[in-house]
Amino acid sequence: MNMSFTLDPRLEKDTVAIGKVGLCQILLMKDARFSWIIIVPEIPGLTELHELQGSDYKDVMTLVHTLSSEMKARLSAHKMNVAALGNMVPQLHIHIIARIEGDAAWPSPVWGVGTAVPYTDIALERQIETFNSIIINITG
Amino acid sequence: MNMSFTLDPRLEKDTVAIGKVGLCQILLMKDARFSWIIIVPEIPGLTELHELQGSDYKDVMTLVHTLSSEMKARLSAHKMNVAALGNMVPQLHIHIIARIEGDAAWPSPVWGVGTAVPYTDIALERQIETFNSIIINITG
Repeated sequence: MNMSFTLDPRLEKDTVAIGKVGLCQILLMKDARFSWIIIVPEIPGLTELHELQGSDYKDVMTLVHTLSSEMKARLSAHKMNVAALGNMVPQLHIHIIARIEGDAAWPSPVWGVGTAVPYTDIALERQIETFNSIIINITG
Repeated sequence: MNMSFTLDPRLEKDTVAIGKVGLCQILLMKDARFSWIIIVPEIPGLTELHELQGSDYKDVMTLVHTLSSEMKARLSAHKMNVAALGNMVPQLHIHIIARIEGDAAWPSPVWGVGTAVPYTDIALERQIETFNSIIINITG
């Protein structure tokens, strides 16, 4: 069933692949202003959260729970933002964003605020290490 | 445990109570531009989605699934938006918004776009009827 899944080109362009947990790709947004993860279930053709059925929905929501909890602790976030929107990129994807008081969009949502700031190589490496360690912690 | 739960005053001010399903209050945003529901688990002190534990998390996410699915069908929505943000109102609440192509914020998220437009009495009555019927369908 996953054979015909292809990541939406815009998600691919805007993110760095971190890893995979269960049926979900875990992607890091290329925007150094926020610790911003996107998870994408590798099921072709889904656009709505509620199109995930049965154990797929349960598994994805368990991953959201765990990632949100781990990210809040590890990144000392003040607030986690979790959202499935998809008005512009219809392929089902779920945002999990660690918000820090005073960050570039605070207290507004992050979408459409200013322009993405590229990571430096070192900052990107550090961020990927952090998320790899979170994923190992989750799956380990 | 629910005895000391009090709805955040800002949520109370901005919404009309529709009903209750399981442990969640179902509120309608007083903004005629969008069919916009907010669900609030009646558990004191929660701010993060991941603070819902075990069967509470499962029950709330099942309600989100059902409401999103029913709203999309009944309101002929083009896209459902589901989000737990809470940067301004920390009490845990989950937005479920039926988006229509060309609505007042499309394709942007709804938060912070323009000003809420009050419902007329008739439109509010009709909207409440629709949601009551959705709730009866869910719980029936």
